[in-house]
Amino acid sequence: MPRRFRATVEYDGTDFAGFQVQRPGIRTVQGELETALASLSDGVRQAVDGAGRTDAGVHALGQVIGFTYTGRLTAEELGPALNGRLPPDVAIREVRTAPPGFHPRRAARYREYRYTVWNGPRSPLRERNAFGVRAPLDVVAMARAGQALEGRHDFSAFGATKDRQPVRTVHSVRVRKQGSFVTIDVRANAFLRGMVRRIAAVLIEVGRGKMNEQEIREALATRKPARNGATAPAKGLCLRRVVLGRRPEATDDEDGDN
Amino acid sequence: MPRRFRATVEYDGTDFAGFQVQRPGIRTVQGELETALASLSDGVRQAVDGAGRTDAGVHALGQVIGFTYTGRLTAEELGPALNGRLPPDVAIREVRTAPPGFHPRRAARYREYRYTVWNGPRSPLRERNAFGVRAPLDVVAMARAGQALEGRHDFSAFGATKDRQPVRTVHSVRVRKQGSFVTIDVRANAFLRGMVRRIAAVLIEVGRGKMNEQEIREALATRKPARNGATAPAKGLCLRRVVLGRRPEATDDEDGDN
Repeated sequence: MPRRFRATVEYDGTDFAGFQVQRPGIRTVQGELETALASLSDGVRQAVDGAGRTDAGVHALGQVIGFTYTGRLTAEELGPALNGRLPPDVAIREVRTAPPGFHPRRAARYREYRYTVWNGPRSPLRERNAFGVRAPLDVVAMARAGQALEGRHDFSAFGATKDRQPVRTVHSVRVRKQGSFVTIDVRANAFLRGMVRRIAAVLIEVGRGKMNEQEIREALATRKPARNGATAPAKGLCLRRVVLGRRPEATDDEDGDN
Repeated sequence: MPRRFRATVEYDGTDFAGFQVQRPGIRTVQGELETALASLSDGVRQAVDGAGRTDAGVHALGQVIGFTYTGRLTAEELGPALNGRLPPDVAIREVRTAPPGFHPRRAARYREYRYTVWNGPRSPLRERNAFGVRAPLDVVAMARAGQALEGRHDFSAFGATKDRQPVRTVHSVRVRKQGSFVTIDVRANAFLRGMVRRIAAVLIEVGRGKMNEQEIREALATRKPARNGATAPAKGLCLRRVVLGRRPEATDDEDGDN
């Protein structure tokens, strides 16, 4: 009897070509999860869906996946069983039963990404999970500029290409300084492709005094790529949390790769 | 005119066979530093000494090195010049002039190592810099047991092999819990080979309730290997700081690989 499950997944994205399965021979998080699941299912391979399609090099603390499993293990047993079959850079954090037809992308009410900047001299021990910026950053200006992005807007200026439906709802943009780390937390119902890394790139420019809040408002209004569409490096980005739940009709937006 | 310098060095030890140069073709921190320095010295290779010989996989935030340089750059210019020639997993943090004959191992007054335990479910994002222990740890018992190691003792029970001079002075052992991390900070004038990782292994056993403070005192007294000489994995260990300065005669002990 096939049953539907959902699980929270953590991974270090450094050595992956992203979440989503591509050509054979390309290492992806989805591919590793499907292989582990197949080895618990008499080799029968089934698709594993994710709530957010993270790009190559992007990490996750709280990716949410959905999958169908036909074997006898309970939700509680599935976590350890899958973990024993996964490589060191992917881990299942929690498995729960899900309703039939559960699909994490459709079920996600909102997503939270964190972009981490190491604002100091080059640091090998922070190299994998943060983007190093040596110039001093004005975190107050970044925080204020981030607020200009909050709300329901046409985010074409922060998307990859012309999107047919480029309107998304950004719930919050929070910029914080913790020692030499500067973190940018962005929560939205869904994102355009590359949107978080474009927001991070622009806020870092604001922090360096090369751009101001007004230019962000203008980019939103004119829908022209902000700073020529520059994206901050993947290694600083992490999908922290996906919150599930019924969404208001108006915010039923498609989530792009980030 | 050859001049002597000292520098603070940070590295991610994961992809190194340790600090010290070994056979050709083996990647070491010292080797990378000597190559970078040679490229600033018309290709002339000179030895770079370190205050602590960290083992394969061990990290450093504050390794101290000494080297001779014959070129024209100032101490301030040497840092950026070397950093531009070093791979992403090694960085120079600060360069200063040093007296002639400066040797970091002899000049080190004491060393501080941190052993980091991730006390929670398997976590890919903490995989590189912490040792994962799933069983709950009694941090209070660990802290108390750690104190039994403080002072000037014969540390044969925590050394690799019979050492001719196995007496060292441990200034402090501090065990702290920060979220799911448990850190063990050990400061000593010098260490026996593998001593920090043996202390960490034993304190983790105490935390799991498999060993007690009394057994640590007995190991010190009998000089028999504690827990058969078990060592905690290298990836959890980091050389945080080397403090230079004149040492009292009585503590002029040799520092072993850690």
